[in-house]
Amino acid sequence: MTSDRELAIFEAAIKLGALYHQWVGTPVSPGTAASIEQAIEKSVILQPYVEKIRVKLDRGQMTPNAFGYSELQGLMFDVEITTRVRAATCLARLHRSGEYPLMELVGCQED
Amino acid sequence: MTSDRELAIFEAAIKLGALYHQWVGTPVSPGTAASIEQAIEKSVILQPYVEKIRVKLDRGQMTPNAFGYSELQGLMFDVEITTRVRAATCLARLHRSGEYPLMELVGCQED
Amino acid sequence: MTSDRELAIFEAAIKLGALYHQWVGTPVSPGTAASIEQAIEKSVILQPYVEKIRVKLDRGQMTPNAFGYSELQGLMFDVEITTRVRAATCLARLHRSGEYPLMELVGCQED
Amino acid sequence: MTSDRELAIFEAAIKLGALYHQWVGTPVSPGTAASIEQAIEKSVILQPYVEKIRVKLDRGQMTPNAFGYSELQGLMFDVEITTRVRAATCLARLHRSGEYPLMELVGCQED
Repeated sequence: MTSDRELAIFEAAIKLGALYHQWVGTPVSPGTAASIEQAIEKSVILQPYVEKIRVKLDRGQMTPNAFGYSELQGLMFDVEITTRVRAATCLARLHRSGEYPLMELVGCQED
Repeated sequence: MTSDRELAIFEAAIKLGALYHQWVGTPVSPGTAASIEQAIEKSVILQPYVEKIRVKLDRGQMTPNAFGYSELQGLMFDVEITTRVRAATCLARLHRSGEYPLMELVGCQED
Repeated sequence: MTSDRELAIFEAAIKLGALYHQWVGTPVSPGTAASIEQAIEKSVILQPYVEKIRVKLDRGQMTPNAFGYSELQGLMFDVEITTRVRAATCLARLHRSGEYPLMELVGCQED
Repeated sequence: MTSDRELAIFEAAIKLGALYHQWVGTPVSPGTAASIEQAIEKSVILQPYVEKIRVKLDRGQMTPNAFGYSELQGLMFDVEITTRVRAATCLARLHRSGEYPLMELVGCQED
Protein backbone atom coordinates (compact mmCIF):
# COMPACT_ATOMS: atom_id res chain seq x y z
CA MET A 1 0.00 0.00 0.00
CA THR A 2 1.35 3.40 -0.98
CA SER A 3 1.10 6.30 1.45
CA ASP A 4 0.26 9.89 0.59
CA ARG A 5 3.76 10.83 1.59
CA GLU A 6 5.19 8.34 -0.89
CA LEU A 7 2.91 9.61 -3.62
CA ALA A 8 4.01 13.18 -2.93
CA ILE A 9 7.63 12.06 -3.22
CA PHE A 10 6.86 10.28 -6.48
CA GLU A 11 5.16 13.34 -7.94
CA ALA A 12 7.93 15.73 -6.97
CA ALA A 13 10.56 13.57 -8.62
CA ILE A 14 8.58 13.22 -11.84
CA LYS A 15 8.48 16.98 -12.18
CA LEU A 16 12.21 17.43 -11.58
CA GLY A 17 13.15 14.76 -14.11
CA ALA A 18 10.69 16.19 -16.59
CA LEU A 19 11.70 19.82 -16.40
CA TYR A 20 15.38 19.00 -16.62
CA HIS A 21 15.08 17.12 -19.89
CA GLN A 22 12.45 19.44 -21.33
CA TRP A 23 14.56 22.55 -20.96
CA VAL A 24 18.19 21.54 -21.17
CA GLY A 25 19.63 22.85 -24.45
CA THR A 26 17.47 25.96 -24.68
CA PRO A 27 19.44 29.01 -25.82
CA VAL A 28 19.72 31.41 -22.89
CA SER A 29 21.59 34.49 -21.70
CA PRO A 30 21.59 36.54 -18.51
CA GLY A 31 19.14 38.90 -20.22
CA THR A 32 16.62 36.18 -21.06
CA ALA A 33 17.06 33.92 -18.04
CA ALA A 34 14.15 35.48 -16.15
CA SER A 35 11.79 34.75 -19.03
CA ILE A 36 12.90 31.11 -19.12
CA GLU A 37 12.57 30.79 -15.34
CA GLN A 38 9.00 32.04 -15.50
CA ALA A 39 8.07 29.82 -18.41
CA ILE A 40 9.40 26.78 -16.54
CA GLU A 41 7.57 27.73 -13.36
CA LYS A 42 4.32 28.29 -15.22
CA SER A 43 4.65 24.96 -17.00
CA VAL A 44 5.43 22.98 -13.88
CA ILE A 45 2.65 24.49 -11.79
CA LEU A 46 0.12 23.25 -14.36
CA GLN A 47 0.96 19.66 -13.51
CA PRO A 48 -0.91 17.65 -10.89
CA TYR A 49 0.04 17.78 -7.20
CA VAL A 50 2.41 20.74 -7.54
CA GLU A 51 1.91 23.24 -4.74
CA LYS A 52 4.92 25.46 -5.25
CA ILE A 53 7.80 25.74 -7.69
CA ARG A 54 10.76 28.11 -7.75
CA VAL A 55 13.32 28.08 -10.54
CA LYS A 56 16.60 29.97 -10.50
CA LEU A 57 19.14 29.70 -13.30
CA ASP A 58 22.73 30.52 -12.46
CA ARG A 59 23.66 33.47 -14.67
CA GLY A 60 27.30 33.05 -13.61
CA GLN A 61 27.55 29.90 -15.70
CA MET A 62 26.14 31.54 -18.82
CA THR A 63 29.47 32.08 -20.53
CA PRO A 64 28.77 33.53 -23.96
CA ASN A 65 29.81 31.39 -26.93
CA ALA A 66 31.21 32.83 -30.17
CA PHE A 67 27.75 34.21 -30.95
CA GLY A 68 27.14 35.75 -27.54
CA TYR A 69 24.72 33.31 -25.92
CA SER A 70 24.73 30.07 -23.93
CA GLU A 71 22.68 26.92 -23.69
CA LEU A 72 20.78 25.95 -20.62
CA GLN A 73 22.77 23.22 -18.91
CA GLY A 74 21.89 20.95 -16.04
CA LEU A 75 24.38 22.57 -13.68
CA MET A 76 22.66 25.95 -14.05
CA PHE A 77 19.46 24.78 -12.37
CA ASP A 78 18.49 25.62 -8.81
CA VAL A 79 14.93 24.41 -8.38
CA GLU A 80 12.74 23.85 -5.36
CA ILE A 81 9.43 22.09 -5.73
CA THR A 82 6.73 21.33 -3.18
CA THR A 83 4.12 18.70 -3.95
CA ARG A 84 1.01 17.81 -1.99
CA VAL A 85 -1.04 14.60 -1.93
CA ARG A 86 -3.87 15.06 0.53
CA ALA A 87 -2.27 15.81 3.94
CA ALA A 88 1.30 15.06 2.88
CA THR A 89 3.64 17.65 1.42
CA CYS A 90 7.18 17.04 0.18
CA LEU A 91 9.98 19.36 -0.79
CA ALA A 92 12.57 18.32 -3.37
CA ARG A 93 15.44 20.13 -5.02
CA LEU A 94 17.52 20.14 -8.16
CA HIS A 95 20.81 21.91 -7.64
CA ARG A 96 24.46 21.76 -8.49
CA SER A 97 26.49 19.44 -6.33
CA GLY A 98 30.08 19.66 -7.55
CA GLU A 99 29.89 18.72 -11.22
CA TYR A 100 26.58 16.87 -10.93
CA PRO A 101 23.07 18.31 -11.20
CA LEU A 102 21.65 16.56 -8.15
CA MET A 103 17.99 15.90 -7.57
CA GLU A 104 17.30 15.28 -3.92
CA LEU A 105 14.44 14.85 -1.55
CA VAL A 106 14.69 17.45 1.18
CA GLY A 107 11.84 16.22 3.35
CA CYS A 108 8.15 15.68 3.84
CA GLN A 109 5.56 16.56 6.43
CA GLU A 110 1.98 15.89 7.21
CA ASP A 111 -0.60 18.52 8.18
CA MET B 1 30.11 28.68 -53.64
CA THR B 2 27.31 29.47 -51.23
CA SER B 3 25.43 32.75 -51.57
CA ASP B 4 24.23 34.98 -48.75
CA ARG B 5 20.71 34.13 -49.70
CA GLU B 6 21.43 30.41 -49.34
CA LEU B 7 23.06 31.00 -45.98
CA ALA B 8 20.05 32.96 -44.78
CA ILE B 9 17.82 30.07 -45.85
CA PHE B 10 20.06 27.62 -44.03
CA GLU B 11 20.00 29.65 -40.83
CA ALA B 12 16.24 30.13 -40.83
CA ALA B 13 15.65 26.40 -41.18
CA ILE B 14 18.06 25.54 -38.36
CA LYS B 15 16.07 27.72 -36.01
CA LEU B 16 12.71 26.24 -36.98
CA GLY B 17 13.94 22.67 -36.55
CA ALA B 18 15.59 23.58 -33.27
CA LEU B 19 12.70 25.35 -31.61
CA TYR B 20 10.25 22.66 -32.60
CA HIS B 21 12.16 19.86 -30.91
CA GLN B 22 13.24 21.98 -27.98
CA TRP B 23 9.72 22.95 -26.98
CA VAL B 24 7.41 20.14 -28.05
CA GLY B 25 6.17 18.34 -24.94
CA THR B 26 6.19 21.37 -22.66
CA PRO B 27 3.10 21.51 -20.41
CA VAL B 28 0.98 24.43 -21.54
CA SER B 29 -2.50 25.92 -21.18
CA PRO B 30 -4.26 28.95 -22.67
CA GLY B 31 -3.30 30.83 -19.50
CA THR B 32 0.43 30.13 -19.83
CA ALA B 33 0.76 30.14 -23.62
CA ALA B 34 1.85 33.78 -23.74
CA SER B 35 4.70 33.08 -21.35
CA ILE B 36 5.89 30.16 -23.49
CA GLU B 37 5.61 32.21 -26.68
CA GLN B 38 7.79 34.92 -25.19
CA ALA B 39 10.35 32.47 -23.84
CA ILE B 40 10.64 30.85 -27.28
CA GLU B 41 10.98 34.21 -29.00
CA LYS B 42 13.64 35.37 -26.57
CA SER B 43 15.58 32.13 -27.00
CA VAL B 44 15.47 32.21 -30.77
CA ILE B 45 16.45 35.86 -31.12
CA LEU B 46 19.68 35.09 -29.23
CA GLN B 47 20.86 32.89 -32.03
CA PRO B 48 22.99 34.13 -34.91
CA TYR B 49 21.45 35.71 -38.03
CA VAL B 50 17.94 36.02 -36.59
CA GLU B 51 16.41 39.37 -37.41
CA LYS B 52 12.84 38.76 -36.34
CA ILE B 53 10.83 35.98 -34.76
CA ARG B 54 7.12 35.73 -33.99
CA VAL B 55 5.61 32.74 -32.20
CA LYS B 56 1.90 32.09 -31.83
CA LEU B 57 0.56 28.95 -30.17
CA ASP B 58 -2.96 27.89 -31.10
CA ARG B 59 -4.95 27.98 -27.86
CA GLY B 60 -7.82 26.26 -29.65
CA GLN B 61 -5.86 23.02 -29.72
CA MET B 62 -5.04 23.12 -26.02
CA THR B 63 -7.70 20.63 -24.96
CA PRO B 64 -7.29 20.05 -21.24
CA ASN B 65 -6.34 16.51 -20.20
CA ALA B 66 -7.67 14.84 -17.04
CA PHE B 67 -5.53 17.21 -14.98
CA GLY B 68 -6.54 20.36 -16.80
CA TYR B 69 -3.55 21.12 -18.99
CA SER B 70 -2.09 20.20 -22.39
CA GLU B 71 1.27 19.56 -23.91
CA LEU B 72 2.74 21.72 -26.58
CA GLN B 73 2.37 19.84 -29.85
CA GLY B 74 3.80 20.50 -33.26
CA LEU B 75 0.45 21.39 -34.77
CA MET B 76 -0.01 24.23 -32.29
CA PHE B 77 2.89 26.25 -33.69
CA ASP B 78 2.52 29.26 -35.93
CA VAL B 79 5.98 30.76 -36.27
CA GLU B 80 7.49 33.31 -38.62
CA ILE B 81 11.20 33.89 -38.65
CA THR B 82 13.32 36.33 -40.63
CA THR B 83 17.04 35.77 -40.96
CA ARG B 84 19.66 38.03 -42.44
CA VAL B 85 23.10 37.24 -43.86
CA ARG B 86 24.64 40.47 -45.07
CA ALA B 87 22.30 41.90 -47.72
CA ALA B 88 20.06 38.84 -47.96
CA THR B 89 17.00 38.32 -45.81
CA CYS B 90 14.73 35.29 -45.80
CA LEU B 91 11.36 34.60 -44.28
CA ALA B 92 10.36 31.08 -43.23
CA ARG B 93 7.33 29.67 -41.45
CA LEU B 94 6.26 26.79 -39.30
CA HIS B 95 2.51 26.30 -39.36
CA ARG B 96 -0.17 23.69 -39.47
CA SER B 97 -0.90 22.30 -42.89
CA GLY B 98 -3.67 19.74 -42.45
CA GLU B 99 -2.29 17.27 -39.94
CA TYR B 100 1.35 18.15 -40.54
CA PRO B 101 3.42 20.87 -38.88
CA LEU B 102 4.95 22.25 -42.04
CA MET B 103 8.17 24.24 -42.19
CA GLU B 104 8.36 26.24 -45.37
CA LEU B 105 10.45 28.88 -46.99
CA VAL B 106 8.27 31.87 -47.84
CA GLY B 107 10.84 33.87 -49.72
CA CYS B 108 14.03 35.91 -49.69
CA GLN B 109 15.11 39.31 -50.86
CA GLU B 110 18.21 41.35 -51.18
CA ASP B 111 18.60 44.95 -50.02
CA MET C 1 14.45 11.13 7.87
CA THR C 2 14.10 9.56 4.44
CA SER C 3 13.87 5.79 4.10
CA ASP C 4 15.51 3.66 1.40
CA ARG C 5 12.08 2.86 0.11
CA GLU C 6 11.29 6.54 -0.27
CA LEU C 7 14.57 7.14 -2.04
CA ALA C 8 13.87 4.28 -4.43
CA ILE C 9 10.47 5.84 -5.18
CA PHE C 10 12.10 9.21 -5.75
CA GLU C 11 14.66 7.77 -8.14
CA ALA C 12 12.12 5.80 -10.17
CA ALA C 13 9.99 8.87 -10.71
CA ILE C 14 12.94 11.02 -11.80
CA LYS C 15 13.72 8.53 -14.55
CA LEU C 16 10.13 8.38 -15.81
CA GLY C 17 9.80 12.16 -15.93
CA ALA C 18 13.18 12.45 -17.60
CA LEU C 19 12.75 9.87 -20.33
CA TYR C 20 9.32 11.16 -21.25
CA HIS C 21 10.49 14.70 -21.93
CA GLN C 22 13.77 13.61 -23.47
CA TRP C 23 12.19 11.43 -26.11
CA VAL C 24 8.77 12.88 -26.87
CA GLY C 25 8.85 14.42 -30.36
CA THR C 26 11.39 11.99 -31.84
CA PRO C 27 10.46 10.90 -35.37
CA VAL C 28 9.50 7.24 -35.24
CA SER C 29 7.79 4.50 -37.27
CA PRO C 30 6.94 0.86 -36.64
CA GLY C 31 10.16 -0.05 -38.44
CA THR C 32 12.38 2.08 -36.19
CA ALA C 33 10.53 1.71 -32.90
CA ALA C 34 12.75 -1.14 -31.71
CA SER C 35 15.85 0.98 -32.18
CA ILE C 36 14.31 3.80 -30.15
CA GLU C 37 13.18 1.42 -27.42
CA GLN C 38 16.69 0.07 -27.07
CA ALA C 39 18.29 3.50 -27.07
CA ILE C 40 15.93 4.63 -24.31
CA GLU C 41 16.59 1.52 -22.26
CA LYS C 42 20.34 1.89 -22.63
CA SER C 43 20.18 5.55 -21.62
CA VAL C 44 18.04 4.94 -18.57
CA ILE C 45 20.05 2.02 -17.26
CA LEU C 46 23.12 4.28 -17.12
CA GLN C 47 21.50 6.39 -14.45
CA PRO C 48 21.96 5.74 -10.74
CA TYR C 49 19.76 3.27 -8.83
CA VAL C 50 18.15 1.76 -11.93
CA GLU C 51 17.96 -2.02 -11.67
CA LYS C 52 15.72 -2.79 -14.61
CA ILE C 53 13.99 -0.90 -17.39
CA ARG C 54 11.65 -2.10 -20.13
CA VAL C 55 10.32 0.22 -22.82
CA LYS C 56 7.58 -0.66 -25.28
CA LEU C 57 6.24 1.83 -27.79
CA ASP C 58 2.77 1.23 -29.13
CA ARG C 59 3.16 0.76 -32.88
CA GLY C 60 -0.62 0.89 -33.24
CA GLN C 61 -0.57 4.60 -32.50
CA MET C 62 2.11 5.35 -35.09
CA THR C 63 -0.24 6.65 -37.76
CA PRO C 64 1.89 7.85 -40.66
CA ASN C 65 1.71 11.55 -41.47
CA ALA C 66 1.81 12.93 -45.02
CA PHE C 67 5.48 11.95 -45.20
CA GLY C 68 5.03 8.44 -43.87
CA TYR C 69 6.28 8.71 -40.28
CA SER C 70 5.06 9.67 -36.82
CA GLU C 71 6.38 11.44 -33.78
CA LEU C 72 6.85 9.74 -30.47
CA GLN C 73 3.98 10.85 -28.26
CA GLY C 74 3.41 10.37 -24.58
CA LEU C 75 0.50 8.00 -25.09
CA MET C 76 2.72 5.57 -27.00
CA PHE C 77 4.86 4.76 -23.97
CA ASP C 78 4.57 1.59 -21.93
CA VAL C 79 7.52 1.62 -19.53
CA GLU C 80 8.35 -0.37 -16.43
CA ILE C 81 11.25 0.63 -14.26
CA THR C 82 12.67 -0.96 -11.14
CA THR C 83 14.95 1.02 -8.89
CA ARG C 84 16.96 -0.13 -5.91
CA VAL C 85 18.34 1.82 -2.94
CA ARG C 86 20.11 -0.63 -0.66
CA ALA C 87 17.53 -3.24 0.40
CA ALA C 88 14.52 -1.43 -1.04
CA THR C 89 13.29 -1.94 -4.60
CA CYS C 90 10.40 -0.12 -6.26
CA LEU C 91 8.52 -0.68 -9.48
CA ALA C 92 6.94 2.21 -11.34
CA ARG C 93 5.15 2.48 -14.67
CA LEU C 94 4.40 4.91 -17.42
CA HIS C 95 1.47 3.81 -19.51
CA ARG C 96 -1.59 5.06 -21.27
CA SER C 97 -4.60 5.55 -19.07
CA GLY C 98 -7.43 6.79 -21.28
CA GLU C 99 -6.05 9.92 -22.91
CA TYR C 100 -3.38 10.54 -20.26
CA PRO C 101 0.16 9.17 -20.13
CA LEU C 102 0.08 8.11 -16.50
CA MET C 103 3.13 7.63 -14.32
CA GLU C 104 2.32 5.49 -11.34
CA LEU C 105 4.02 3.75 -8.50
CA VAL C 106 3.19 0.05 -8.63
CA GLY C 107 4.82 -0.97 -5.37
CA CYS C 108 7.96 -1.49 -3.35
CA GLN C 109 9.51 -4.26 -1.35
CA GLU C 110 12.42 -4.85 0.90
CA ASP C 111 14.84 -7.78 0.64
CA MET D 1 10.73 31.73 -56.67
CA THR D 2 12.56 29.10 -54.69
CA SER D 3 14.91 26.69 -56.44
CA ASP D 4 15.31 22.99 -55.73
CA ARG D 5 18.79 23.70 -54.47
CA GLU D 6 17.41 26.22 -51.98
CA LEU D 7 14.78 23.76 -50.85
CA ALA D 8 17.41 21.09 -50.32
CA ILE D 9 19.41 23.55 -48.20
CA PHE D 10 16.31 24.41 -46.21
CA GLU D 11 15.52 20.76 -45.54
CA ALA D 12 19.05 19.85 -44.48
CA ALA D 13 19.15 22.67 -41.95
CA ILE D 14 15.78 21.74 -40.45
CA LYS D 15 17.07 18.26 -39.73
CA LEU D 16 20.28 19.48 -38.11
CA GLY D 17 18.47 21.93 -35.85
CA ALA D 18 15.89 19.30 -34.98
CA LEU D 19 18.20 16.46 -34.09
CA TYR D 20 20.41 18.68 -31.99
CA HIS D 21 17.60 19.83 -29.72
CA GLN D 22 15.86 16.48 -29.70
CA TRP D 23 18.86 14.58 -28.42
CA VAL D 24 20.96 16.95 -26.35
CA GLY D 25 20.70 15.94 -22.69
CA THR D 26 20.30 12.20 -23.30
CA PRO D 27 22.34 10.10 -20.85
CA VAL D 28 25.15 8.45 -22.79
CA SER D 29 28.43 6.60 -22.31
CA PRO D 30 31.05 5.16 -24.67
CA GLY D 31 29.28 1.81 -24.29
CA THR D 32 25.88 3.11 -25.40
CA ALA D 33 26.97 5.74 -27.92
CA ALA D 34 26.54 3.38 -30.89
CA SER D 35 22.94 2.69 -29.92
CA ILE D 36 22.21 6.42 -29.73
CA GLU D 37 23.94 7.08 -33.04
CA GLN D 38 21.79 4.46 -34.74
CA ALA D 39 18.59 5.69 -33.17
CA ILE D 40 19.32 9.23 -34.35
CA GLU D 41 20.17 8.04 -37.86
CA LYS D 42 17.01 5.96 -38.06
CA SER D 43 14.90 8.87 -36.86
CA VAL D 44 16.38 11.38 -39.25
CA ILE D 45 16.15 9.16 -42.31
CA LEU D 46 12.40 8.91 -41.77
CA GLN D 47 12.00 12.58 -42.47
CA PRO D 48 11.28 13.97 -45.91
CA TYR D 49 14.07 14.74 -48.41
CA VAL D 50 16.81 13.00 -46.43
CA GLU D 51 19.02 10.92 -48.68
CA LYS D 52 21.82 10.08 -46.28
CA ILE D 53 22.69 10.70 -42.64
CA ARG D 54 25.76 9.78 -40.63
CA VAL D 55 26.03 10.48 -36.91
CA LYS D 56 29.21 10.12 -34.87
CA LEU D 57 29.36 11.04 -31.21
CA ASP D 58 32.76 11.88 -29.78
CA ARG D 59 33.42 9.29 -27.06
CA GLY D 60 36.47 11.29 -25.97
CA GLN D 61 34.20 13.98 -24.53
CA MET D 62 32.10 11.51 -22.54
CA THR D 63 33.78 12.16 -19.22
CA PRO D 64 31.96 10.11 -16.59
CA ASN D 65 30.19 12.07 -13.87
CA ALA D 66 29.99 10.92 -10.23
CA PHE D 67 27.63 8.15 -11.33
CA GLY D 68 29.71 6.98 -14.26
CA TYR D 69 27.86 8.40 -17.26
CA SER D 70 27.64 11.58 -19.33
CA GLU D 71 25.01 13.59 -21.07
CA LEU D 72 24.94 14.10 -24.78
CA GLN D 73 26.21 17.62 -25.44
CA GLY D 74 26.23 19.68 -28.58
CA LEU D 75 30.00 19.56 -28.92
CA MET D 76 29.95 15.76 -29.12
CA PHE D 77 28.10 15.71 -32.44
CA ASP D 78 29.71 15.04 -35.79
CA VAL D 79 26.89 14.73 -38.28
CA GLU D 80 26.74 14.74 -42.05
CA ILE D 81 23.43 14.91 -43.83
CA THR D 82 22.59 14.83 -47.52
CA THR D 83 19.19 16.01 -48.70
CA ARG D 84 17.67 15.82 -52.13
CA VAL D 85 14.90 17.88 -53.76
CA ARG D 86 14.40 16.63 -57.28
CA ALA D 87 17.75 17.05 -59.09
CA ALA D 88 19.44 19.05 -56.35
CA THR D 89 21.39 17.48 -53.49
CA CYS D 90 23.01 19.32 -50.59
CA LEU D 91 25.45 18.24 -47.93
CA ALA D 92 25.46 19.91 -44.51
CA ARG D 93 27.38 19.24 -41.31
CA LEU D 94 27.14 19.67 -37.58
CA HIS D 95 30.52 19.49 -35.93
CA ARG D 96 32.62 21.02 -33.24
CA SER D 97 34.35 24.23 -34.20
CA GLY D 98 36.35 25.33 -31.16
CA GLU D 99 33.78 25.62 -28.40
CA TYR D 100 30.79 25.94 -30.71
CA PRO D 101 28.70 23.19 -32.26
CA LEU D 102 28.66 24.59 -35.77
CA MET D 103 26.06 23.76 -38.38
CA GLU D 104 27.34 24.53 -41.84
CA LEU D 105 26.41 24.05 -45.42
CA VAL D 106 29.17 22.16 -47.20
CA GLY D 107 27.80 22.39 -50.71
CA CYS D 108 25.19 21.42 -53.24
CA GLN D 109 25.12 19.96 -56.69
CA GLU D 110 22.69 19.18 -59.41
CA ASP D 111 22.43 15.87 -61.29
